[in-house]
Amino acid sequence: MSQTKVVAVGAGYFSQFHFDGWSRIEDVDFAAICDLDCDKAADAAKQFGVKNSYSDFAEMLDAEKPDAVDIITRPDSHLELTRLAVERGIAVICQKPLAPTFAQSKQLVQLSIDAQVPLMVHENFRFQPWYREIKRMLDDHVVGSRLHTISFRCRTGDGWAADAYLARQPYFRTMPRLLIFETGVHFIDTFRFLGGEIDGVYASLRKLNPDIAGEDAAIVMFDFADGGQALWDANRYNEPNVDDPRYT
Amino acid sequence: MSQTKVVAVGAGYFSQFHFDGWSRIEDVDFAAICDLDCDKAADAAKQFGVKNSYSDFAEMLDAEKPDAVDIITRPDSHLELTRLAVERGIAVICQKPLAPTFAQSKQLVQLSIDAQVPLMVHENFRFQPWYREIKRMLDDHVVGSRLHTISFRCRTGDGWAADAYLARQPYFRTMPRLLIFETGVHFIDTFRFLGGEIDGVYASLRKLNPDIAGEDAAIVMFDFADGGQALWDANRYNEPNVDDPRYT
Repeated sequence: MSQTKVVAVGAGYFSQFHFDGWSRIEDVDFAAICDLDCDKAADAAKQFGVKNSYSDFAEMLDAEKPDAVDIITRPDSHLELTRLAVERGIAVICQKPLAPTFAQSKQLVQLSIDAQVPLMVHENFRFQPWYREIKRMLDDHVVGSRLHTISFRCRTGDGWAADAYLARQPYFRTMPRLLIFETGVHFIDTFRFLGGEIDGVYASLRKLNPDIAGEDAAIVMFDFADGGQALWDANRYNEPNVDDPRYT
Repeated sequence: MSQTKVVAVGAGYFSQFHFDGWSRIEDVDFAAICDLDCDKAADAAKQFGVKNSYSDFAEMLDAEKPDAVDIITRPDSHLELTRLAVERGIAVICQKPLAPTFAQSKQLVQLSIDAQVPLMVHENFRFQPWYREIKRMLDDHVVGSRLHTISFRCRTGDGWAADAYLARQPYFRTMPRLLIFETGVHFIDTFRFLGGEIDGVYASLRKLNPDIAGEDAAIVMFDFADGGQALWDANRYNEPNVDDPRYT
């Protein structure tokens, strides 16, 4: 079988799920992992049976000459990493959110268009089986012939006090924009999957946890182009008024 | 026992619940019912064991000299009926919504202040036992020490197609403003009961049923003065895509 050669950059908390996925795809040769911290890259490579590890991204691309690279880093690094990949003709799959600003996101997309190299955003919620089932039921008109309103209520419960977001994603605490930028993008994409294009939005954001920089509660209304509406009611703050808050 | 003498004006669909209530209060002498339609007034009086019926409001007040009058008519009549009562020194309990506009509502309140006569708005939702229980649980901090978000979802399901709101409240079909004005006021009052003063609001209204004049779907966000939020997600439209839509 002809294999697609894939490398990855970023060995933080979420990368383990990507690495596990790539390792299990038979027609992928998952060849190398890069991280600025060379020990983290080496440890991950060892754990997932990956041959090589690097701490320099360009060096990895030049040495490995992969078909595709999986960018699993923070948003502010995506533009530069994508540039380095597409100028070498290497396809990119990139974590959400694409970039810190809309202007930078458009710039990133333009890079791949100019280089005629495939670019994919790693947006996974719409592939979760429950959303596929909702979509199937809507398409089959199981609950009626048109969508009036669809609501998601989001209570992750991991955002409490000074220990918010735990050891696993502590940088959430200092992100200037948190709830919509980091989490809400998943739901916005899922709403678009289920209800079509969005042509109106109203958002009300709050910061409930005084120990973080960004917002952790939001109510957002979306207008679909076809007249339906969506509602996202989200709160990541779990008030620490019990001895042992349940970790999620 | 000294009894309070009460009369009522308006013998439409909802008046039966008022008449039944007044009839069951021992220290009330429920003395007369008035309606522009004298037959309706007479029928209601007979049904609830009320001595007298009238088709002229001022005539009833002058003949009966009641302590209080219950105004159970449509909003656009409330100002004039209240004027006729308070200028005779008669206390008023008036159906919600108080008047068609905020300006007229303020005028109505001012009339009772100027006449130094009690005025009550007949707002009943906050007295329903489930809301009393929610209030008790909030006050006792059963679910935490502060209110972040409280949501009500409203699906009355009686607003379908040309038969919307049934024979019992058919005038709903032609009201230029329906869902917030007629129904939402109950929930707004209940939110204020549960969460305190509201100092911000955003509303998105839709008309789903093409056969009516006003709006029948809404999503409304409320900001409480203390930082909490409320959400009212309401839809009175029941699409007639089944043979026998269940009447509510």
